[in-house]
Amino acid sequence: MSKGLPKRSENYSEWYNELVKRADLAEHSAVKGCMVIKPYGYAIWEKMQRALDDMFKATGHQNAYFPLFVPKSFLEKEEEHAEGFAKECAVVTHYRLKKNPDGAGLIVDPDAKLEEELIVRPTSEAVIWNTYKGWIQSWRDLPLLINQWANVVRWEMRTRLFLRTTEFLWQEGHTAHATSEEAIEETERMLGVYATFAEEWMALPVLKGLKSANERFAGAIETYCIEALMQDGKALQSGTSHFLGQNFAKSFDVKFVNKDNQPEYAWATSWGVSTRLMGALIMAHSDDNGLVLPPRLAPVQTVIVPIYRSEEDLAVISERINPIVERLKSLGVSVKYDADDKYKPGYKFAEYELRGVPVRLAIGMRDLENGTVEVARRDTLSKETIALDGIEEKIVALLDEIQANIYQKALAFREANTFQIDSWDEFKVQIEKGGFIEAHWDGTSETEERIKAETKATIRLIPLETNQESGTCVYSGAPSKQRVVFARSY
Amino acid sequence: MSKGLPKRSENYSEWYNELVKRADLAEHSAVKGCMVIKPYGYAIWEKMQRALDDMFKATGHQNAYFPLFVPKSFLEKEEEHAEGFAKECAVVTHYRLKKNPDGAGLIVDPDAKLEEELIVRPTSEAVIWNTYKGWIQSWRDLPLLINQWANVVRWEMRTRLFLRTTEFLWQEGHTAHATSEEAIEETERMLGVYATFAEEWMALPVLKGLKSANERFAGAIETYCIEALMQDGKALQSGTSHFLGQNFAKSFDVKFVNKDNQPEYAWATSWGVSTRLMGALIMAHSDDNGLVLPPRLAPVQTVIVPIYRSEEDLAVISERINPIVERLKSLGVSVKYDADDKYKPGYKFAEYELRGVPVRLAIGMRDLENGTVEVARRDTLSKETIALDGIEEKIVALLDEIQANIYQKALAFREANTFQIDSWDEFKVQIEKGGFIEAHWDGTSETEERIKAETKATIRLIPLETNQESGTCVYSGAPSKQRVVFARSY
Repeated sequence: MSKGLPKRSENYSEWYNELVKRADLAEHSAVKGCMVIKPYGYAIWEKMQRALDDMFKATGHQNAYFPLFVPKSFLEKEEEHAEGFAKECAVVTHYRLKKNPDGAGLIVDPDAKLEEELIVRPTSEAVIWNTYKGWIQSWRDLPLLINQWANVVRWEMRTRLFLRTTEFLWQEGHTAHATSEEAIEETERMLGVYATFAEEWMALPVLKGLKSANERFAGAIETYCIEALMQDGKALQSGTSHFLGQNFAKSFDVKFVNKDNQPEYAWATSWGVSTRLMGALIMAHSDDNGLVLPPRLAPVQTVIVPIYRSEEDLAVISERINPIVERLKSLGVSVKYDADDKYKPGYKFAEYELRGVPVRLAIGMRDLENGTVEVARRDTLSKETIALDGIEEKIVALLDEIQANIYQKALAFREANTFQIDSWDEFKVQIEKGGFIEAHWDGTSETEERIKAETKATIRLIPLETNQESGTCVYSGAPSKQRVVFARSY
Repeated sequence: MSKGLPKRSENYSEWYNELVKRADLAEHSAVKGCMVIKPYGYAIWEKMQRALDDMFKATGHQNAYFPLFVPKSFLEKEEEHAEGFAKECAVVTHYRLKKNPDGAGLIVDPDAKLEEELIVRPTSEAVIWNTYKGWIQSWRDLPLLINQWANVVRWEMRTRLFLRTTEFLWQEGHTAHATSEEAIEETERMLGVYATFAEEWMALPVLKGLKSANERFAGAIETYCIEALMQDGKALQSGTSHFLGQNFAKSFDVKFVNKDNQPEYAWATSWGVSTRLMGALIMAHSDDNGLVLPPRLAPVQTVIVPIYRSEEDLAVISERINPIVERLKSLGVSVKYDADDKYKPGYKFAEYELRGVPVRLAIGMRDLENGTVEVARRDTLSKETIALDGIEEKIVALLDEIQANIYQKALAFREANTFQIDSWDEFKVQIEKGGFIEAHWDGTSETEERIKAETKATIRLIPLETNQESGTCVYSGAPSKQRVVFARSY
């Protein structure tokens, strides 16, 4: 590290960008809007994938794979869906290059123009529901519970690593059901899976709720979402689950014969989370020294750094440490013993701090004589010298403690930054300071749009579990049935 | 199943196509040349991915992710590489659709034309070596050992499920080294990983060797490959590992300072296997009754079917079977207890046979009384009634035996279909019958091309381990240093 990171309090945005780069998580590629996910960042994403995939399978879903390309005519079939995505579509028009007859290099071969343009999938409802037509005939074929891990492309003019990129990685679940009730139940079940994943793995407390009509997925009847609060007081939508009704079944003519032997359109859901979660993970927990990773998603959970002056000292330390490394591995701890002599301990400490390794042990000859080891926690930046005996079990317990502490810290932050506000003047003041604002809203898109135009705040969600406390709209003064959550957002 | 599969002996190609469809492995999509990988097929691919990924990590590689799009100018930088892929490139020329002003639907927005066209990656050397320029400065940064799991697109006019599709899934390793020797060692190491995977997981014996100049990867100095023999006597290239020399480092100006403090271009390798392996797996082992899966890649390794007339009987059987299911799971066996009453046992048997489940148990009331169970092996289609006591350990041993047997069967088939041929007349006769032909070749591209033109046979590989027995070219009569392997191929 040449110098420290920018401070969150001074320039949050710059702090984020620098942190992503310096911790080797990702970088901008030479391809406009696309990122390179570097090995350390990808290792975290792999851990997220594994945990989510296990949860999807435990709830009865299977993985499959559908084509990258969506014929333009498929996208057009569901009108709202088409309108929603038309402006951000990468379009394949040709299928061949040829040598430039007038000079060097290659040109697009004009003779290889496609009859119908292909869209690089921005999402796969169209191509999947076109396929489901062949898979669904009878109620016996339902429910159809499928997930896909894939890359998608939505053309973006302004991009930020992980948060908004032209290409991103995600999973998209696409299910078909015999009844509306079952489909809604599935939509809510998967929202629950996302919330559990966010809280138990990412240590990220989330609110669950419904989007307003303005913020719904293009083609959905209802969009459910989870929302998290970042340290700068902005909200980040971390996952969505859509009840699609019969819209796609009608557009792609997917009918099944129900138990009464009558043809009926199938009911649909879709749900997804993406590499955007990496952005949420980074922004929710990290500090001015670098990343803070919840142990359950940390590629390296514990690093052990020997402090030594001679090869002989190192050999003595290693002899004591090697069995501890093996024992930690057998306990399921991902551990690294860093005896590399290219770098000094101080450099290593700073590097592991930057990369968010939850627990760092340092051990020198004096420790060895005393039977002790220095244990540093990344989350609190505290150090403690403790007995080496039984260190393995202490580390396992400490990792659990850190996981819980990171969650509690984020929860306390959110609670301290959630405000019930009943006057428009207060609203305007608070929104500048950030946080979630719980306020009454009259339920109209018009009011929602005016609030957005005046303050850049959007309705993040209409809470699912709430006191149905009635009141008057913070903006219009018209009657309101419940508070909704406003914030500025990523 | 409405009726049986076509027979291999009558129409091998039709047998393959029908098998892929009926066993629910994959289907053609409405997008020309692209396939849908169905859940059962994808479950096999996931098992392959997991095993390969573990092997890559055990040999020191890390995963990362690079952009889907390659700017045309990047592709042009390595000339041979560009020429090799130009004819099969899907080209993105626009980034937006808009409402059709003259009618319904969407049109490509002419105002959203890209300044530079983007190619959907056919392979990622160009985009990755452009990135490596920023990652490699010193010998300390080497070796760089990276793998990517991704989709790629190579426009194909004639496609076959798994074997040749416009879009396919694969992994591509891309490594950078300080010396030529290290890079060659890596190329050979990864070839070895592929061979081990093919033999130990896919139960597929493979030959290892070098491609002739004509068959090399576009941009490589040497291409190593593994080749397997299918049941129709055609060869299938199952994986390639390329030594790229300094070609890409020079094209993308990737230099490092070596230990002597001198700037030097980095040495490269790349290596990949794809969903084509699914085709090899299916074609190597399956029979006229359906799929035959090696147990290590079977999504369901053992199915248990209860035979019963009443709910009471089923309850009695289930009470005995449930602990066996649990015990099998704890032994790491993927097991399914199929008590579904929608289908009759006979239908289930045929279905699991079609899907290649390695071991099937059937148990009725009389078995229960006798303390026995009927065990059917998918590989030999044999049945045996054995004691129920200790059945779990017997199944574990049986799965190992089946894995070994499938491999031995494929090996025996290859050995019976490998011929040393020394006369051109015999060559022409044998090639019509299929198999690997070991013959002398004079080493010229001209002879290679003539043989191909006359017989459709190509040099599959120049064996790595071979008696350096000299002789005369089977076609030209010119001197030859060693035999090479010819075959018709997929």
